[in-house]
Amino acid sequence: MPVASIDHTAFVPQALARVRADSPLVQCLTNSVVTGFTANVLLALGASPAMVDIPEEAGPFARVASGVLINLGTPHAEQRAAMVEAARAAGSAGTPWVLDPVAVGALPVRTALARELLRLRPTVIRGNASEIIALAGAGDGGRGVDSSDGVGAAEESARELARTAGCVVAVSGPVDLVTDGVRSARIANGDALLTRVTGGGCALGAVMAAFAAVEEDRFAAVVAAVTTYTVAAELAAKESSGPGSFAVAFLDALAALDEADLGERAALS
Amino acid sequence: MPVASIDHTAFVPQALARVRADSPLVQCLTNSVVTGFTANVLLALGASPAMVDIPEEAGPFARVASGVLINLGTPHAEQRAAMVEAARAAGSAGTPWVLDPVAVGALPVRTALARELLRLRPTVIRGNASEIIALAGAGDGGRGVDSSDGVGAAEESARELARTAGCVVAVSGPVDLVTDGVRSARIANGDALLTRVTGGGCALGAVMAAFAAVEEDRFAAVVAAVTTYTVAAELAAKESSGPGSFAVAFLDALAALDEADLGERAALS
Amino acid sequence: MPVASIDHTAFVPQALARVRADSPLVQCLTNSVVTGFTANVLLALGASPAMVDIPEEAGPFARVASGVLINLGTPHAEQRAAMVEAARAAGSAGTPWVLDPVAVGALPVRTALARELLRLRPTVIRGNASEIIALAGAGDGGRGVDSSDGVGAAEESARELARTAGCVVAVSGPVDLVTDGVRSARIANGDALLTRVTGGGCALGAVMAAFAAVEEDRFAAVVAAVTTYTVAAELAAKESSGPGSFAVAFLDALAALDEADLGERAALS
Repeated sequence: MPVASIDHTAFVPQALARVRADSPLVQCLTNSVVTGFTANVLLALGASPAMVDIPEEAGPFARVASGVLINLGTPHAEQRAAMVEAARAAGSAGTPWVLDPVAVGALPVRTALARELLRLRPTVIRGNASEIIALAGAGDGGRGVDSSDGVGAAEESARELARTAGCVVAVSGPVDLVTDGVRSARIANGDALLTRVTGGGCALGAVMAAFAAVEEDRFAAVVAAVTTYTVAAELAAKESSGPGSFAVAFLDALAALDEADLGERAALS
Repeated sequence: MPVASIDHTAFVPQALARVRADSPLVQCLTNSVVTGFTANVLLALGASPAMVDIPEEAGPFARVASGVLINLGTPHAEQRAAMVEAARAAGSAGTPWVLDPVAVGALPVRTALARELLRLRPTVIRGNASEIIALAGAGDGGRGVDSSDGVGAAEESARELARTAGCVVAVSGPVDLVTDGVRSARIANGDALLTRVTGGGCALGAVMAAFAAVEEDRFAAVVAAVTTYTVAAELAAKESSGPGSFAVAFLDALAALDEADLGERAALS
Repeated sequence: MPVASIDHTAFVPQALARVRADSPLVQCLTNSVVTGFTANVLLALGASPAMVDIPEEAGPFARVASGVLINLGTPHAEQRAAMVEAARAAGSAGTPWVLDPVAVGALPVRTALARELLRLRPTVIRGNASEIIALAGAGDGGRGVDSSDGVGAAEESARELARTAGCVVAVSGPVDLVTDGVRSARIANGDALLTRVTGGGCALGAVMAAFAAVEEDRFAAVVAAVTTYTVAAELAAKESSGPGSFAVAFLDALAALDEADLGERAALS
């Protein structure tokens, strides 16, 4: 089903403008590989990152944060406890939260944790095709953080997961898919260099939390987040001569992104 | 009170020259977001970083390190034990150590830890205005790592904290303040881009530890650290087109900083 | 003994081509400072990083990974357990694994862990001269991550360690040494800027795991890894104006490295 109900040339830039104006406070409980890049992406976007991920602090902070990201990339025991605490607090306080179930299905500790967190009703779930298929109950989660399944193969799983979990599901790939179980959108922006920078996917989860914090329609918020992120990647790729310079140019492009230009470049369907 | 006793056009460059010549070994017990950037800042400066932050190693290492940074950004349980161990060992060995009480006052675990560390008598305390006010006993620490109070509002708290804790206190902001309770200095260098790079503030704490390691007058050492750091930021901002390229240029600028030029650019009062 | 049995102008580029074609999955259990840089180096090289470092996951993953890196830079308790689990699983599954005993000899917890891991028979050991001397049983490991001993001083220790541990030993320095106890090679490529970027040495351990994953002759694999890495550093240094821009250019250079050019630039003896 096309995303006919959103006029994206108007909506996406408006959502970015709102993020920049409100500077939402995004609490990240994320993996040890991408913490720095994730914080820099949020800062470049105009949001405020806060990596509060220990028990007894994660819950209280999730009550006052604008949005929360829970990414299962390196789920150490203390962080796992903090994640459950943050998800509960976010749920009871109405703080939108994003679950990124990295490598779910392939590894036991995070798979059990992902299922526990799923019951706490995330606002958004973001993953690659293998992860979404695994979380929906089919498949084994691929071989780690890479997706060995295509986005197309995950479409039915994504819709089903969105319906059963009552959330928005985003599947990353060459063309990104966002669905709330009823509405669906595809975003054809982006650049393959984004897959050659660690955190290229993980930081997008934090950006979704920032957009969900300022926009009540979370399906639209996630579409705007993905579009903003992938258009910035396209612009950065033009200035880059490899993955190192791309990561630098990507932060610059996110910070400099012209809102009118963003609306024109959006390749939504 | 102006910093009349320091001839900064001579002192600041001399202190940087000493850091470069001595390459002080700076032990960092810091948050998971900024470890890489902090180590790169120390390397660019000419110091030697060592991130030794586990119990049974943190203490012995603090006895032989030239300086220690303790930053409370993501204080996991094992790191908290290592921090107390390092602070005790630094104190008994005479190793200068810097406390950066990130988000103190706003969150319970780190607030308790900050108070415990304060009793172990840090050589330097570095924070934003909200954190310094909270640590001095007033205010609630703001909303995380950002300062919602101005440096001016923190001035009285900073002096009082310096006097009661017997240390140097540095308050980061558009104009930085350094005080030992009697002497005070303001440093008007820097660039707003520094606030859009994660670790922009945290790494400065490590730089203070490096300067305190080579200069007995710790008030002067901290003034030199702040001036060196913020002048490098000014120079980097000229070469940057956004926060990504700024972070890269900042490391280059720190490494290339001409000592005579530094003395001329210092905006101390 | 010269590396007469390897025709490096043919072998090194072939090994790189194989890494790029196979995209080996490299599991990293590494220190908190260099996780992001290490993952980015592997991605730039064409390998697939996966930072799986918790108990109950590290072992199962090591069975399916193409290669494993175990770096002792910040060995927190949970990671130490995961490291032993991963080393055992790698050993029984035949997965090549690299041990980087950061600061061994100088600090007690990691020294005990390094000795335990050594008994599990790593495929490759990578360190600076002080670390190799300490692990071989002489010396105290220097003052941390820097080497205070020269590569030459470590040569006898390296050969002995390679023979007693039944592995390949690589000693980093201005000229790198690789030995399996019988054969030895020296690689004279590289640039001093590599020592001013945090993770410059640590990420090389991950690159060795990637090459060992695609090449049965592990001595040759490690020689190819070091040569590829240090030639990329030489090329990057030409494009750099300091350590910040060097780190960026290094990732670009690794990704763009021309295989024929690599063979010509290799300074092996």
